[in-house]
Amino acid sequence: MPRILTLLSLLSLSLCYSPGVYAQEREEEEEDAFFIRRIYDVALTEGRCYDWLRALSTDYGGRLSGSPQAAAAVEYTRQMLDTLGLDSVWLQACRVPHWERGDTERVRIVNSPSRGSIDLGGLALGNSVGTGPEGLSAEVIEVQGLDDLELLGPEALAGKIVFFSRPMDPTPIRTVTDYGGAVDQRVYGAARAARYGAVAVLVRSITTSRDDVPHTGVTVYEDETPRIPAIAISTLDADLLSGLLRQEVVRVYLQANCRTYPDKLSYNVIGEIKGTRYPEEIILVGGHLDSWDVAGGAHDDGAGCVHAMDVLQVMRRLGYRPQRTLRCVLFMNEENGLRGGLEYARVSNERGEFHLAAIESDAGGFTPRGFSCDGEASIFVDRFKSVIDRFYLLEPYGLSLSKGGSGADIGPLKSQRGLLFGFRPDSQRYFDYHHTANDNFDAVNKRELEMGVAAISSLVYLLDKYGTD
Amino acid sequence: MPRILTLLSLLSLSLCYSPGVYAQEREEEEEDAFFIRRIYDVALTEGRCYDWLRALSTDYGGRLSGSPQAAAAVEYTRQMLDTLGLDSVWLQACRVPHWERGDTERVRIVNSPSRGSIDLGGLALGNSVGTGPEGLSAEVIEVQGLDDLELLGPEALAGKIVFFSRPMDPTPIRTVTDYGGAVDQRVYGAARAARYGAVAVLVRSITTSRDDVPHTGVTVYEDETPRIPAIAISTLDADLLSGLLRQEVVRVYLQANCRTYPDKLSYNVIGEIKGTRYPEEIILVGGHLDSWDVAGGAHDDGAGCVHAMDVLQVMRRLGYRPQRTLRCVLFMNEENGLRGGLEYARVSNERGEFHLAAIESDAGGFTPRGFSCDGEASIFVDRFKSVIDRFYLLEPYGLSLSKGGSGADIGPLKSQRGLLFGFRPDSQRYFDYHHTANDNFDAVNKRELEMGVAAISSLVYLLDKYGTD
Repeated sequence: MPRILTLLSLLSLSLCYSPGVYAQEREEEEEDAFFIRRIYDVALTEGRCYDWLRALSTDYGGRLSGSPQAAAAVEYTRQMLDTLGLDSVWLQACRVPHWERGDTERVRIVNSPSRGSIDLGGLALGNSVGTGPEGLSAEVIEVQGLDDLELLGPEALAGKIVFFSRPMDPTPIRTVTDYGGAVDQRVYGAARAARYGAVAVLVRSITTSRDDVPHTGVTVYEDETPRIPAIAISTLDADLLSGLLRQEVVRVYLQANCRTYPDKLSYNVIGEIKGTRYPEEIILVGGHLDSWDVAGGAHDDGAGCVHAMDVLQVMRRLGYRPQRTLRCVLFMNEENGLRGGLEYARVSNERGEFHLAAIESDAGGFTPRGFSCDGEASIFVDRFKSVIDRFYLLEPYGLSLSKGGSGADIGPLKSQRGLLFGFRPDSQRYFDYHHTANDNFDAVNKRELEMGVAAISSLVYLLDKYGTD
Repeated sequence: MPRILTLLSLLSLSLCYSPGVYAQEREEEEEDAFFIRRIYDVALTEGRCYDWLRALSTDYGGRLSGSPQAAAAVEYTRQMLDTLGLDSVWLQACRVPHWERGDTERVRIVNSPSRGSIDLGGLALGNSVGTGPEGLSAEVIEVQGLDDLELLGPEALAGKIVFFSRPMDPTPIRTVTDYGGAVDQRVYGAARAARYGAVAVLVRSITTSRDDVPHTGVTVYEDETPRIPAIAISTLDADLLSGLLRQEVVRVYLQANCRTYPDKLSYNVIGEIKGTRYPEEIILVGGHLDSWDVAGGAHDDGAGCVHAMDVLQVMRRLGYRPQRTLRCVLFMNEENGLRGGLEYARVSNERGEFHLAAIESDAGGFTPRGFSCDGEASIFVDRFKSVIDRFYLLEPYGLSLSKGGSGADIGPLKSQRGLLFGFRPDSQRYFDYHHTANDNFDAVNKRELEMGVAAISSLVYLLDKYGTD
């Protein structure tokens, strides 16, 4: 099939282009290709993302919403944006949840008949309640997912610690796909198990790695059920626990003194270059400034923040005067509340703004593979054909465009009916680090990070130049 | 332009396909897509490459030709191939150079007027002669490349240590391109500088990283000029030396006791599954078993070896009976001699063999981006159109096909006029590790490595099924 397409396509060229039209398109194509190449040159030689990320993930690591680190990161990134000569830099207030892990997390298999007592490594899920200072001890029942709960019912689950052990599927090519297939038990496991009288949940970490590193992440409670503690264990510990459960009754002792405090004031950090011709049309590049508390938040999502900041830096350095308004937004509280993203969209709608496009980088600082575009097909075809048709200019840089999700923080902008893009870096290593104590600066490669800035800047250039049809 | 192509292409479908032809092609396409998906499933869940690489790069690290580690790696990989139930596994003898680094490498800036004496980290280039036990001391002259030597001439260079400091260009998207632009000074610098009476050379390490890790690699002497010592220094040390040279005369003391011993007997390790229908047509997958001496040789080229071995393992596990002969070849001595590759081709030609295709993996165990294909355009178009036209089946896995180089070891097979492919993984991190003490198992990601096996196996499947036209 492709063979015939190619032959006919070549034929069609000579039929469809009058020499004049062809020459003009050709000139424009060359101009675009040349500018995109300059973007890459500058990003790879004069980028600042890597140095910013070093600071953000070492000096301001563990930027969980409401923490002193998050507050300091707001100020640091505001100051850095202030060095870029933008038209304006400001903070946008939002109230955020304030959860703290505390200083105790214990997961202990108690007096196993075959193995005695074994301490596992545990990491409380974000928003989890604590166990109280005495902790709690109960028999463990293993399930493969949320559907098992209803099948087992309260007679099997009441008074138990429910252990969600469904592994992440290693076969999808994009690991984000696998993650989507496993994450429900982490997010909703505690709330759903509580409906049947469970006293706590343990969750197998969501990663395809087999290692001893637990992965945290958010859990979401329901108003109508009791809040029970939820703790992640590593994949190796989960395998150990599953193995024991196949041969004997296992009791586990849990202790955690995490807790939620009253909401705090925090901020989205925003910088923009005003458009020269269509200032009312906004092109947003963003990431989220908060991270989990256990590491530097280098890939998640320090990388996305410095991507967004460096896009403006690179465009400035190139002397580029955008026709449309370029806005960098570092959202607060993506991890356990999305308050920053929601507040940003609320204010934007209230002001009657129009986001022609929003691009979120929240999948790590790895080699770019392309962008996924969220929204109705009619939006692309009717209104953004000129941009989408020129995406082939980015293909020599290893980038492709696909339908798919965009980003949690920009999702609330969907009602403005612009284009929402998710930046898609290579995903193979992401879940080695995601939400763990290993998500630190040393896990990020400089070139891979810089290539992300170049990729996003290039898409921004096309969006700014060709806008809507 | 692409817009019009696409519209016409869609139109053309209805014109060109009679329903019968379409249904048959469609069925074959589905069968191929299904099998390729199974290859990925097996490679990602039952691959053995990662465990093999752990052994190869830890137990048998530093596999430089002629070393005990190289000899042990020959035996280890032969045994592992023997566990796969192949039709035959054998060793192919070849004589290889035997160079040893020795135990002393000193690079010292002596009595700099501004900084006193400074010890730099040095790593002798492979094949380099030593300095003798007393070492040597001389004034340093910095050059940007081979062409500078002729401009400066013997009056400037005689008695000096020539410092080749041209950095690797960070702007190409594939780092292998940058490497090609910088490597000549390392390979030929010593021989060329010796023509003008230089007493030794220092070479800036070939990497875009700025760090204190020196990178070794081969240097090649000429018969007609004296052999002078050649030592690599890290990019940070190179910057320091360049900085000093801008302000003062710098003398450097060098000492190295590396030396070349008589050639030794070694082996290529080969395993094959005989073709059921065209056993005389060989599809080769390969990597090189030798590595530099300073690390585990995990990416270069342990990854390529376990890729090649695991392709056969995965095909066996799938119960695949190839029509053509599948052969895994682990070449000896790619790094400093290519003796294995030359001997393999010599024997193959002598036996009148025909390699329908050869695929070499020698660019690391990173996420696959595709394959580059070496050879005359006429070979593809006339004889391999059926295979090339079906490459689109691999595009959903992020793979693309381009013209370009293949691999050093399979290069000598070119005269058989088959297809020569180079496996192309993502290249951004490769030169962080290449030829350094950091090229160890912990630099390899399991999923990225396994994806390479799947990518190569999928291409092998298409080559085996569709062969030549």
